[in-house]
Amino acid sequence: MMYSQLYKSTLLDDVIPFWENNSIDYKNGGYFTCLDTKGNIYDTDKFIWLQGRQAWTFSMLYNRVEKNENWLKIAKNGIDFLKKHGKDKTGNFYFSTTAEGKPLVKPYNIFSDCFAAMAFSQYAIASGDEEIKQLAIKTYHNILNRKDNPKGIYEKTTDVRPLKGFSLPMILSNLVLELEDILPTEEVEKTIDFNINEVMEVFLDKKSGLIYEFVRPDGSREDSFNGRLLNPGHGIEAMWFMMDIALRRNDKSLMQKAIDTVLKILDYSWDEKFGGILYFMDAKGHPPQQLEWDQKLWWVHLESLVALAKAHQHNKNPEIKKWYNKVHNYSWKHFSDPKNGEWFGYLNRQGKVLLNLKGGKWKGCFHVPRAMYQCWKAFEKIEKNRQ
Amino acid sequence: MMYSQLYKSTLLDDVIPFWENNSIDYKNGGYFTCLDTKGNIYDTDKFIWLQGRQAWTFSMLYNRVEKNENWLKIAKNGIDFLKKHGKDKTGNFYFSTTAEGKPLVKPYNIFSDCFAAMAFSQYAIASGDEEIKQLAIKTYHNILNRKDNPKGIYEKTTDVRPLKGFSLPMILSNLVLELEDILPTEEVEKTIDFNINEVMEVFLDKKSGLIYEFVRPDGSREDSFNGRLLNPGHGIEAMWFMMDIALRRNDKSLMQKAIDTVLKILDYSWDEKFGGILYFMDAKGHPPQQLEWDQKLWWVHLESLVALAKAHQHNKNPEIKKWYNKVHNYSWKHFSDPKNGEWFGYLNRQGKVLLNLKGGKWKGCFHVPRAMYQCWKAFEKIEKNRQ
Repeated sequence: MMYSQLYKSTLLDDVIPFWENNSIDYKNGGYFTCLDTKGNIYDTDKFIWLQGRQAWTFSMLYNRVEKNENWLKIAKNGIDFLKKHGKDKTGNFYFSTTAEGKPLVKPYNIFSDCFAAMAFSQYAIASGDEEIKQLAIKTYHNILNRKDNPKGIYEKTTDVRPLKGFSLPMILSNLVLELEDILPTEEVEKTIDFNINEVMEVFLDKKSGLIYEFVRPDGSREDSFNGRLLNPGHGIEAMWFMMDIALRRNDKSLMQKAIDTVLKILDYSWDEKFGGILYFMDAKGHPPQQLEWDQKLWWVHLESLVALAKAHQHNKNPEIKKWYNKVHNYSWKHFSDPKNGEWFGYLNRQGKVLLNLKGGKWKGCFHVPRAMYQCWKAFEKIEKNRQ
Repeated sequence: MMYSQLYKSTLLDDVIPFWENNSIDYKNGGYFTCLDTKGNIYDTDKFIWLQGRQAWTFSMLYNRVEKNENWLKIAKNGIDFLKKHGKDKTGNFYFSTTAEGKPLVKPYNIFSDCFAAMAFSQYAIASGDEEIKQLAIKTYHNILNRKDNPKGIYEKTTDVRPLKGFSLPMILSNLVLELEDILPTEEVEKTIDFNINEVMEVFLDKKSGLIYEFVRPDGSREDSFNGRLLNPGHGIEAMWFMMDIALRRNDKSLMQKAIDTVLKILDYSWDEKFGGILYFMDAKGHPPQQLEWDQKLWWVHLESLVALAKAHQHNKNPEIKKWYNKVHNYSWKHFSDPKNGEWFGYLNRQGKVLLNLKGGKWKGCFHVPRAMYQCWKAFEKIEKNRQ
């Protein structure tokens, strides 16, 4: 089977039906994401990140794949829940709620807001709903206002040794492209400039070619647990956001730099002993504080497949193809579950399933379908160019 | 070698020298706890929990093993650091500081205060220092005042579905005995009554015989991630605190119940596939949210050895001896590192070393020496009775 066909059919005949059949809460609105191997619901709490992500996924499929009314209905089910139950009075999004939408965990986490904004924006395009469009813009500005102190009153770190995190510029790189249709061009271009600089000049370490998770406000490195932290999947995911920006701006040098960085990170973080990409590493080789550092996570591998497929589409370097095949073989062998549908989320270092789930507190309907869509489209172009 | 001798010599000839030689920061006061396999310092941040715990350990050894002036000096080094740099203006203890004592992470975690109180109390007994004694009492009352809202302003959970945690009554069970000499008898007895009830009636589930980590304020169970959470090592550790209370009060029924609970928890949490005790479990068998659930941790196994040694001392049930041998063989084979000293902290499910460290953010000079001391003393009595 052609790779474009593999990704397309897995997306449309396996992954999307899995979520359509098992996750929709038509009673309360929103989605259940705690689904076991077979799709049975084992917990009914709603995690706002994942509500936004699933509403985005179904809106995106409606916008880009097919005007399927059921997808729009499923997207609306999440959008309505987010609008009604997702945020507090000041417009900040909770981390989680009960099935019915009562707030459980307060808005300490700005990524709830980021994924809500992405969902609102895609849904506004899909539905033409003006109110949701305004909500997307409002949420986006709220994120920008909070971005220098994203945890607000929940911040536990003092200002003695401040660090800034990679997550926010990384997500903004993607978010601003997502919101491109509803934001003023000037705002979009300004934010893209800022993000390219943060990601490729500040967090990307010139010497090692690796992306650091935390740096000092002046961009220098700090020798501490957070200062030494590497999250290879994060870096690789950010690189395909950069490739999208490079393509949009026809910036060949940015494209090359992003591709080089993907290869550099893979080379550093590939587990030579058992295969797969390690979850966390310490830049100096010290023991990381994350006990789960040696696990193999679905999203790390899927984002690597997307990055490598896009790289392969734009660059003939045989190293890219070699790495794509290596990550492809590992991922499809260990994460994929054709028997019950969807992908496992968490493997131990040896590649065995660590948690019998297809969804949980952090895994929902997002990385798998987005990567399937992105790889499908990339391979369609690659295969066409080959003919 | 007799077990009493094994534990005594490991404590005095291996574990304590490891910390004496590698961890003391005579320049700034306090202790470095991030030590690699060989004892080299790989990070200099100071975690207040671990400062308190190490000062406690050296004070305790001075009080109970030998009037070794170097131990008292080492204890004082930590006490002075805690007094000078450990707390904010309101007397709440930080979570961490720089090597020099500048606050890094704010006082969100009441266990910093618990271990500071324990350290002050033992050190006051060792040194006769009246100021430190008053500080122990003051810190104890501050903990009691904060106990219904231990995280204070850092609490991220709403009051929609409140749960209370097992950690606090568990630690108080031990803390109140530690502070027995400096608190009024009435206060001690009242707190012990409260703790026995919380631990053995509220958190100990009558049906399963297991200890739950979180229950509703009325003591009922909740079907949520936290409500289903089991932490076997925690439950077992609490049971030896209960055995100490039972012995003190000559309460045979409490002793029996604590011993039965240890066996019940071990039976439930022993990993039949690879050996060792699992770190986290879900009471309904669902995937736990803790990715590290299948790892084998040093303290879980050491606290189990203490609980089983104490149980064996007071009860002739052959099941106890059988379990002691099982946990002993696993622990001494996998965690102990006679070549470089001390014990490894973190093993993967298969029993291989996961992090090349003897100390870090959560592992310091505490569980290993305390368990060595407790097992040494228990086996001394067991071996004497056998003669």
